[in-house]
Amino acid sequence: MPEPERLRADAARNRAAILRATEEMLARHHPRQISMEQVAAAAGVGKGTVFHRFGSRYGLMRALMQERAQDLQIAITTGPPPLGQGAPPRARLLAFLTAVVEVVARNKGLLAALGPEAPVTTAPEQQPREEHPVYRSWHGHISHLVHQQRQDLDADMLAHVLLATLHSEPILNALEHGDANRLDRTLRDVVTGLLPG
Amino acid sequence: MPEPERLRADAARNRAAILRATEEMLARHHPRQISMEQVAAAAGVGKGTVFHRFGSRYGLMRALMQERAQDLQIAITTGPPPLGQGAPPRARLLAFLTAVVEVVARNKGLLAALGPEAPVTTAPEQQPREEHPVYRSWHGHISHLVHQQRQDLDADMLAHVLLATLHSEPILNALEHGDANRLDRTLRDVVTGLLPG
Repeated sequence: MPEPERLRADAARNRAAILRATEEMLARHHPRQISMEQVAAAAGVGKGTVFHRFGSRYGLMRALMQERAQDLQIAITTGPPPLGQGAPPRARLLAFLTAVVEVVARNKGLLAALGPEAPVTTAPEQQPREEHPVYRSWHGHISHLVHQQRQDLDADMLAHVLLATLHSEPILNALEHGDANRLDRTLRDVVTGLLPG
Repeated sequence: MPEPERLRADAARNRAAILRATEEMLARHHPRQISMEQVAAAAGVGKGTVFHRFGSRYGLMRALMQERAQDLQIAITTGPPPLGQGAPPRARLLAFLTAVVEVVARNKGLLAALGPEAPVTTAPEQQPREEHPVYRSWHGHISHLVHQQRQDLDADMLAHVLLATLHSEPILNALEHGDANRLDRTLRDVVTGLLPG
């Protein structure tokens, strides 16, 4: 029998392969068009493994989003500037918004599918979006950076205003047409207008 | 028998009473909590009149929204400045955003209920939000004003960014808690940062 460490390594490798396969499929399809079977085939694992590990397509998308949010969280807490500490608030905010737009653009529709309009499978998903851990973490980071430079602004509301763009149907449709750089540039214009360099 | 003009006047009066009653109920309830029966009772008309005229609760909400959008459209095309013509683009944009926030705040959830997450009763509602006549009219007005003052900005994307706030779940929840002035102030900060006075 394989040793426990070996089993854990296999499980971690399977998990990574499944998430990578999901990410690649999301570059071409809407989350609702992706089946667990397709993911399993693309990842080279059994369909049962995907179901056992993630429960449902919704659980799979959620795990992927959480993994990316974690990567971004690590980058802003312990990574190098300007995403990480050590750069001025404005430079950090611009870098963060670029990173967030890139994550959303790379996975068009994923955030929308994770919202309240997605088929709800478990009770915790019914919480308002502002209480979702990813939304809270992003909102907290943005409002903290805004507050560092301009205490006269409503940093809390401004963070909601900036994040609203990532849940806007017209903007998500524009991202599907490759307009991520347009959104990034416009958010930069908004931020540089509010936080002079 | 009453004359045709009399009948038309009655119909117009009924329609206005139904829309006014709906508006008053929306100040206290989510669109999905409002029944056609309640609206009929509040308006002092028969339930059949409401169904005959608006088809469904969705049709009723849609008619109300269209009526308000028309009022705003009239104000920006033929009304006095700063909402109407004659004021600088920045002043017109600020006045328009205040008016839009007021309309949305006064009818919390109505726009959300008109979005793709609302129960869809007729095919035309399935069009993307950016093709909805109200969204298009608001988007066109905002991008026109931005473009008048700053041709170097992506006026089209910026208009989507500003309008995204009106479909953001966290912001709509904040509006329900009476935070309309916070949203208005933050949108003013964004606009004045981009369009110097």
